[in-house]
Amino acid sequence: MKILVINGPNLNLLGMREPETYGTETLAGINRSLEDAALKISASVGFYQSNSEGELVDAIQGAVGVYDGIIINPAAYTHTSVAIRDAISAVAIPTVEVHLSNVYSREEFRHKSFIAPVAIGQIAGFGSAGYNLALEGLVGYLRKSVES
Amino acid sequence: MKILVINGPNLNLLGMREPETYGTETLAGINRSLEDAALKISASVGFYQSNSEGELVDAIQGAVGVYDGIIINPAAYTHTSVAIRDAISAVAIPTVEVHLSNVYSREEFRHKSFIAPVAIGQIAGFGSAGYNLALEGLVGYLRKSVES
Amino acid sequence: MKILVINGPNLNLLGMREPETYGTETLAGINRSLEDAALKISASVGFYQSNSEGELVDAIQGAVGVYDGIIINPAAYTHTSVAIRDAISAVAIPTVEVHLSNVYSREEFRHKSFIAPVAIGQIAGFGSAGYNLALEGLVGYLRKSVES
Amino acid sequence: MKILVINGPNLNLLGMREPETYGTETLAGINRSLEDAALKISASVGFYQSNSEGELVDAIQGAVGVYDGIIINPAAYTHTSVAIRDAISAVAIPTVEVHLSNVYSREEFRHKSFIAPVAIGQIAGFGSAGYNLALEGLVGYLRKSVES
Amino acid sequence: MKILVINGPNLNLLGMREPETYGTETLAGINRSLEDAALKISASVGFYQSNSEGELVDAIQGAVGVYDGIIINPAAYTHTSVAIRDAISAVAIPTVEVHLSNVYSREEFRHKSFIAPVAIGQIAGFGSAGYNLALEGLVGYLRKSVES
Amino acid sequence: MKILVINGPNLNLLGMREPETYGTETLAGINRSLEDAALKISASVGFYQSNSEGELVDAIQGAVGVYDGIIINPAAYTHTSVAIRDAISAVAIPTVEVHLSNVYSREEFRHKSFIAPVAIGQIAGFGSAGYNLALEGLVGYLRKSVES
Amino acid sequence: MKILVINGPNLNLLGMREPETYGTETLAGINRSLEDAALKISASVGFYQSNSEGELVDAIQGAVGVYDGIIINPAAYTHTSVAIRDAISAVAIPTVEVHLSNVYSREEFRHKSFIAPVAIGQIAGFGSAGYNLALEGLVGYLRKSVES
Amino acid sequence: MKILVINGPNLNLLGMREPETYGTETLAGINRSLEDAALKISASVGFYQSNSEGELVDAIQGAVGVYDGIIINPAAYTHTSVAIRDAISAVAIPTVEVHLSNVYSREEFRHKSFIAPVAIGQIAGFGSAGYNLALEGLVGYLRKSVES
Amino acid sequence: MKILVINGPNLNLLGMREPETYGTETLAGINRSLEDAALKISASVGFYQSNSEGELVDAIQGAVGVYDGIIINPAAYTHTSVAIRDAISAVAIPTVEVHLSNVYSREEFRHKSFIAPVAIGQIAGFGSAGYNLALEGLVGYLRKSVES
Amino acid sequence: MKILVINGPNLNLLGMREPETYGTETLAGINRSLEDAALKISASVGFYQSNSEGELVDAIQGAVGVYDGIIINPAAYTHTSVAIRDAISAVAIPTVEVHLSNVYSREEFRHKSFIAPVAIGQIAGFGSAGYNLALEGLVGYLRKSVES
Amino acid sequence: MKILVINGPNLNLLGMREPETYGTETLAGINRSLEDAALKISASVGFYQSNSEGELVDAIQGAVGVYDGIIINPAAYTHTSVAIRDAISAVAIPTVEVHLSNVYSREEFRHKSFIAPVAIGQIAGFGSAGYNLALEGLVGYLRKSVES
Amino acid sequence: MKILVINGPNLNLLGMREPETYGTETLAGINRSLEDAALKISASVGFYQSNSEGELVDAIQGAVGVYDGIIINPAAYTHTSVAIRDAISAVAIPTVEVHLSNVYSREEFRHKSFIAPVAIGQIAGFGSAGYNLALEGLVGYLRKSVES
Repeated sequence: MKILVINGPNLNLLGMREPETYGTETLAGINRSLEDAALKISASVGFYQSNSEGELVDAIQGAVGVYDGIIINPAAYTHTSVAIRDAISAVAIPTVEVHLSNVYSREEFRHKSFIAPVAIGQIAGFGSAGYNLALEGLVGYLRKSVES
Repeated sequence: MKILVINGPNLNLLGMREPETYGTETLAGINRSLEDAALKISASVGFYQSNSEGELVDAIQGAVGVYDGIIINPAAYTHTSVAIRDAISAVAIPTVEVHLSNVYSREEFRHKSFIAPVAIGQIAGFGSAGYNLALEGLVGYLRKSVES
Repeated sequence: MKILVINGPNLNLLGMREPETYGTETLAGINRSLEDAALKISASVGFYQSNSEGELVDAIQGAVGVYDGIIINPAAYTHTSVAIRDAISAVAIPTVEVHLSNVYSREEFRHKSFIAPVAIGQIAGFGSAGYNLALEGLVGYLRKSVES
Repeated sequence: MKILVINGPNLNLLGMREPETYGTETLAGINRSLEDAALKISASVGFYQSNSEGELVDAIQGAVGVYDGIIINPAAYTHTSVAIRDAISAVAIPTVEVHLSNVYSREEFRHKSFIAPVAIGQIAGFGSAGYNLALEGLVGYLRKSVES
Repeated sequence: MKILVINGPNLNLLGMREPETYGTETLAGINRSLEDAALKISASVGFYQSNSEGELVDAIQGAVGVYDGIIINPAAYTHTSVAIRDAISAVAIPTVEVHLSNVYSREEFRHKSFIAPVAIGQIAGFGSAGYNLALEGLVGYLRKSVES
Repeated sequence: MKILVINGPNLNLLGMREPETYGTETLAGINRSLEDAALKISASVGFYQSNSEGELVDAIQGAVGVYDGIIINPAAYTHTSVAIRDAISAVAIPTVEVHLSNVYSREEFRHKSFIAPVAIGQIAGFGSAGYNLALEGLVGYLRKSVES
Repeated sequence: MKILVINGPNLNLLGMREPETYGTETLAGINRSLEDAALKISASVGFYQSNSEGELVDAIQGAVGVYDGIIINPAAYTHTSVAIRDAISAVAIPTVEVHLSNVYSREEFRHKSFIAPVAIGQIAGFGSAGYNLALEGLVGYLRKSVES
Repeated sequence: MKILVINGPNLNLLGMREPETYGTETLAGINRSLEDAALKISASVGFYQSNSEGELVDAIQGAVGVYDGIIINPAAYTHTSVAIRDAISAVAIPTVEVHLSNVYSREEFRHKSFIAPVAIGQIAGFGSAGYNLALEGLVGYLRKSVES
Repeated sequence: MKILVINGPNLNLLGMREPETYGTETLAGINRSLEDAALKISASVGFYQSNSEGELVDAIQGAVGVYDGIIINPAAYTHTSVAIRDAISAVAIPTVEVHLSNVYSREEFRHKSFIAPVAIGQIAGFGSAGYNLALEGLVGYLRKSVES
Repeated sequence: MKILVINGPNLNLLGMREPETYGTETLAGINRSLEDAALKISASVGFYQSNSEGELVDAIQGAVGVYDGIIINPAAYTHTSVAIRDAISAVAIPTVEVHLSNVYSREEFRHKSFIAPVAIGQIAGFGSAGYNLALEGLVGYLRKSVES
Repeated sequence: MKILVINGPNLNLLGMREPETYGTETLAGINRSLEDAALKISASVGFYQSNSEGELVDAIQGAVGVYDGIIINPAAYTHTSVAIRDAISAVAIPTVEVHLSNVYSREEFRHKSFIAPVAIGQIAGFGSAGYNLALEGLVGYLRKSVES
Repeated sequence: MKILVINGPNLNLLGMREPETYGTETLAGINRSLEDAALKISASVGFYQSNSEGELVDAIQGAVGVYDGIIINPAAYTHTSVAIRDAISAVAIPTVEVHLSNVYSREEFRHKSFIAPVAIGQIAGFGSAGYNLALEGLVGYLRKSVES
């Protein structure tokens, strides 16, 4: 059970900037914590971060045949990228959308997600813990699919 | 650490109707599973379901001084109830919003939530497993708040 | 062939208030007339009225296994209730939506119905006679379904 | 009591095309059934069908002094024709609007009717049986008007 | 100086129906009055009325090489016909748009005109006198164009 | 001169929660103050509070023949309830709408009131003093109506 | 029969600026031409121009008891002034709205008129000749009103 | 405790025009009544009326250091003036917005107020009595502010 | 392989009017060129043009059993005709939509097509050459369908 | 090179009110600083401030033949005045629009400017320094125009 | 005559994923077919595909001086990229927009194209054959331009 | 005082393409002029241009600790990029937004800026001179911040 964790633009700054919104944990820290959590449920995780929409599309395409599921925090591209949406549709790998903050209590334009309709589920507002919930939820989903 | 799990209109029919959308598990089954999960993390859960907006408001108000957190699946009232939103704001008990299905791949009017902006987080699309993720996420949030 | 006739908020006042809009017949009178009409076509009718959205949802749920069809005048809830819509979807009992007045010649917000897309049909503008047309139409529909 | 039954564009194809949406009955069949039904309630019916908006306006104008009521299924022109609406207003003959399918569960642009606000009532979703309900409802309405 | 006066759907009923909105003068009466007025300013007028959008387009096309200007009351087609707009653009004959009533104090959908942007001017609200003002304005416009 | 004072959802929490928005006075305190104020102007007041839309409709209907006027703070239902609006229209008892806070400086969705068009007037932003102004205004209105 | 001709902001520049849009005639020239035309139909005209919304309101109010009709070119205030609209409503003097250019072929925001719904009619696109048509139309309207 | 009462465009016509909408009391009468009412609660009132947006801004600015509170009926400028809104914000004098009629049962464009968000409260629909309620409410507000 | 080429309103004027927008080729010329092109790919073409929406509907209906495919340039009716859309749906003959000009660089209302969703494809902006591309594309599509 | 600096409503209060939004510099101070800056680049400046839309239009018109360029901070009228826009268009004097604050981070209605499309450029967010940038930019623009 | 064929995001997956929507042909296959077709009409083609918006802009810029025309399938960027639109405008190389599927029968957001207004034409819905039609149409367009 | 000047997509073509819109100066020329201007005010400037949204985000992130301020012309990304907006927010380096042309007199979609709300100010319409004004404004802002 291999999961690819993809982080979008500006998430490389996590823990270094705007801690009141995004917390003090770094992306490296979150990733380590995810590796530990994956181990406990006999799964493994890979990581990718980019500020470029096109590279995120490349990464999603590259997951075919390598990963069983994707956890993606598309950040700003959530609201503007049809290309990432189409990539997720095309590869047909079960994908969970994660947001650190509660996007629904921020600006109007952050309430709309191009990704949500093609994801299996969405988790928002739990800070870095949201990735762990996503991992747990996604692995559960994948194991159930395999069984049935 | 006591959590109140509130379910809105028509969720009493879970497992009995429209299984292709909502799965085959009954609400009683989900609740039992949540009790087990709560036990494992040294938390306890109470349950409430109603088809009436006013009774859901009463239940939220009644949680003051009794519960530390609320997990709510407001179902149809997600999209129409300012009263439930105001109740959550008023009692100031940390609340997580759960949806069984991916509301973002359904009708347009289901994309808007009056509850999301006053919840700490939102989990959608994981079926009944979403309640367990919500419990885990909420208890984690509450313990962190206590520590800090 | 058993039909449940459900009337929503303020329809208990029929015949007593605003006769220029809603006519002079009382709800009791309409119900009696429906009983007579049902008899003639070898059907029977039950009645329910409430001003509460939640109780209307309860009534729709309660019709499962008891009634073959529902005639509903959701009145004000036509325009605001996703819960009643979801209840009709969930119970999967063929339902006809009735309105006494021509809602399309009244305020803009009365032109939109949450119920219409899940009903088999809609009858509006015939005053109390609309219930009789609905009964005839619904029973015809049900008998045809049985045959096919 | 004479009623003119007007059918708009493409309804001449009824029973021959898209039976899953419009049923298998032909317009001629519907008309015969309406003649029988009219006879039973001592009314008579005339028929007109055209694919042209202008000819439908002509037909409505031509009904003055000849018919007591109109049953119209404006089909596609429901959503685009102010001319037919104005004709109905101008002749001031009580008119009932009929739709075979439940227009509210189809494309967004089919939810809006230019005709509804000037009709006395609207019947949708009952297939060809809707014409019979309309006839019954309209004749009832006209007889009541005569009495009062 | 030859002017074609074109009247759209339902205007053949002028003076016979809805006098409170459209006055008591018939279209024939208006036309006679226009002939008199034209005579006084050494112009001549032709007349055309149809309830059909396509025939109105035909009439506008047919005016090429025969008429110097067009006065059109497109009635209901004002708000729905791109075809008439395109015909006026195509023939490039100076055209004045006339409305009997003040369309801006009626329903919202009557506030929008597809014709106005391609007409040289618009006159509304003066009842049948509006045609005479249009004739005077149009002939003045044409004579000025000829001079310059 | 008898006035019914109706309070909607969450107003039972007044003085206990969110004092920065709603002040420190309890609903009981406000009611006592209204009783005193009523006494001074030879009027009497009754009180009702509910979190349920349906019960508020019941209460409005129950005021017929008992009360001369209604003061209502519909709270969250201001923005979502057509049923309460229809109840006020149906009973035809002069009604004043009160809001504690200035709803126009809060979220966009709180700017729209379904109740305002059927109320005789609206008072917002004066905190609990708004009820007293409403009482004074309503009694003045009722006495004037009686005189004329 | 006395008519007040009111011109709004920037119309004092007529003939001096943007001749391609507004022609080469000055406001003084237009006024002289209107005086001549008035004389011919036994009417008299007064004139007022201001760039100030408030002064235009004052002028409209000042017309009470002095003038029988108003011709107004509200220019920019057409699209933004509720105050001028309310003044015309309040004084109840029959008013004709004139525009030099075809406002419907200019920017979107010029398509909406606050004045049109309270005017008896509207004339647009005839350049300075529009004032003469307005005078003729308004005097005709007033004489007809007097007769009936 | 000095209060400035400001009335906007066309309110100088009160009692003289459109009595069915605005009542028969003149502005002078209303002002006298306000002076009496002020006296009773040991306050004093000044008055200003203008049809000009700019002069209303001047008046609001001129209130600094002279008046403790403002009662304003901005009339037509309610819906169009950002300048008056900014003036009220700038001078930071507590301001109450009054409307004679129930603006919410009139045209759509009258439902929006630029002033409401910067006022402490809003009173609408009580006719001239609304000014007295505003005075009472404003003075109560100011005295409470002084105390706290 | 027989193809019907249908041209909508004002296209009979092609080559005679507005050459800067629509080119200098006449409809007859275009048709001849299409006949030649059809011959080369062993197909045949029929032609129909009308300014009337209803006649275009008739023509589409008449193609059943006679033609294998339709090329339609609905011109103005593209943006306003649900009737033509429904006709294409009803006859279920593969249809290609052609536009001479690039409709997306013209007025906003020309960007919306009622026809596009029921056509197999759309070709715009190539002038008269667009018909030839459509013929080639449509015949290719039909031959492929036959094969599979 | 003579420049007129025009300031709109409430800007006479600069430095005296809401310093957190508008800074502590007075309009007189800004003007003195602009005079110094103008001197350095061999230009001269005139000043005008008014709270009245009409007077601002007058001032713009009065600049013809006296000034080579205009710097305008239309303040609240930015968002509501077509009259000022038309005046700038009419006089055809190159105009720069200045705003002290970043209007794009304030209320939605402040994001729209009627002035921007007719100005040569726009400068916002630099506080009082924005006027100096505008002077420099405008003079540069004018000198370049003269040269070319 | 050299043509650059540019394909946007996810089109590198053609033939490998979602064949029901995009067919079974690979991009390499399409390109080979285009080379053959180009040869037949004495043209040559170059190819570029990228998932990155910026690289697509680079490619368009790089076509200057090398290619005579561009065929672009911007895929997801059709609906979101102003940068690609601006690049096409800037290089002023005649460009044809191609879509494999009928975008007008898919999600609402796919109906809007930023590219269409700057392209010479648009071809949609013909699957991979659309590229060949585009090639033919574009080369025809270019040869005609050269001649004239 | 170090300033980074960032230019977005297609600005590398400056001076080479569309000179009527963007002038004849090249980006290199503008940069040289900025270096000279910077020298005069004892500041230094760095430059970056890219057509890729992701690389622009990288560049903004890379400015942390190196530059005191940013001047950005986001070109097409102004209207579509939340990622660049978030990057500017995240790095918290004072940023000025520059546009060569007056974006408010171009297409509607260019009126909206995702960047403006997070920039300190905006300068548009001054051509290449806008960069110099931005430099002057930004350095002034930064020096003032340091002082206070």
